[in-house]
Amino acid sequence: MADHLAVLTTTDAEDKARALAASAVERRLAACAQIDGPVTSVYRWEGRIESDAEWRVLFKTTAARYDELAAHIDETHDYDTPEIIATPITAGSDAYLAWLSAETSR
Amino acid sequence: MADHLAVLTTTDAEDKARALAASAVERRLAACAQIDGPVTSVYRWEGRIESDAEWRVLFKTTAARYDELAAHIDETHDYDTPEIIATPITAGSDAYLAWLSAETSR
Amino acid sequence: MADHLAVLTTTDAEDKARALAASAVERRLAACAQIDGPVTSVYRWEGRIESDAEWRVLFKTTAARYDELAAHIDETHDYDTPEIIATPITAGSDAYLAWLSAETSR
Repeated sequence: MADHLAVLTTTDAEDKARALAASAVERRLAACAQIDGPVTSVYRWEGRIESDAEWRVLFKTTAARYDELAAHIDETHDYDTPEIIATPITAGSDAYLAWLSAETSR
Repeated sequence: MADHLAVLTTTDAEDKARALAASAVERRLAACAQIDGPVTSVYRWEGRIESDAEWRVLFKTTAARYDELAAHIDETHDYDTPEIIATPITAGSDAYLAWLSAETSR
Repeated sequence: MADHLAVLTTTDAEDKARALAASAVERRLAACAQIDGPVTSVYRWEGRIESDAEWRVLFKTTAARYDELAAHIDETHDYDTPEIIATPITAGSDAYLAWLSAETSR
């Protein structure tokens, strides 16, 4: 696994997205997070195609902190099965990646 | 290749983005999709730097469904060479990834 | 490393995001770039959790051009430690990936 990850979740209100972002950074489970939205989420529900407004939170963290971050999102989120997906950061500015690592160290 | 992928395309109108998202989910080629926009796309065209408003569609699917999803986007899209790029999902909530797999099973 | 990459940076004004995108495409360091924003960036600063509006620039390029693109962002950007992170493109439309490669060739 790459040493650094971008981890995405979505939720149905901007203030919930802000709370997820702030609580993860406060606990050093992510160095930073970016919120965008509203986006339009399209999915199948009871056989119909539905679409809803959601807000995305993109956390930047280390592989070492991933399990704790995912557990925190799962506990804090009010969906039964929140989206939590991680994509690898395979290159980056050395200074920025060092900052990510330092911010998530305790 | 990772078992799950995030697949991105872009198009020039919000209703086209919604149609791409809904038709892929309807066919179980993706479990869900998120539309964001307008974004500003910057590219070179006939030697000049152009910028246009576009909408992005981010599909979440399995590696097993990728080829069918890409073929569907290519057929449905009205650009000659639509953007279709996939990034690996290398970690995620077990429950969410199981949902992705189940939604794209037939 | 994958042959193609999606490279992300963020900055604090839309015109700076546009300038970063246009200058990279102009120099063939990226085939295209998409700007979205404002997004809300959440991070720790002097012990407090801060949030600011930022704009994101997502460049699509080749692994062969990554080092030059990262150096260009670092020089052009007015932050001391700008975010520069790359995620691999592990699949995609053959025609689109060929276009990415051609646009970044000199």
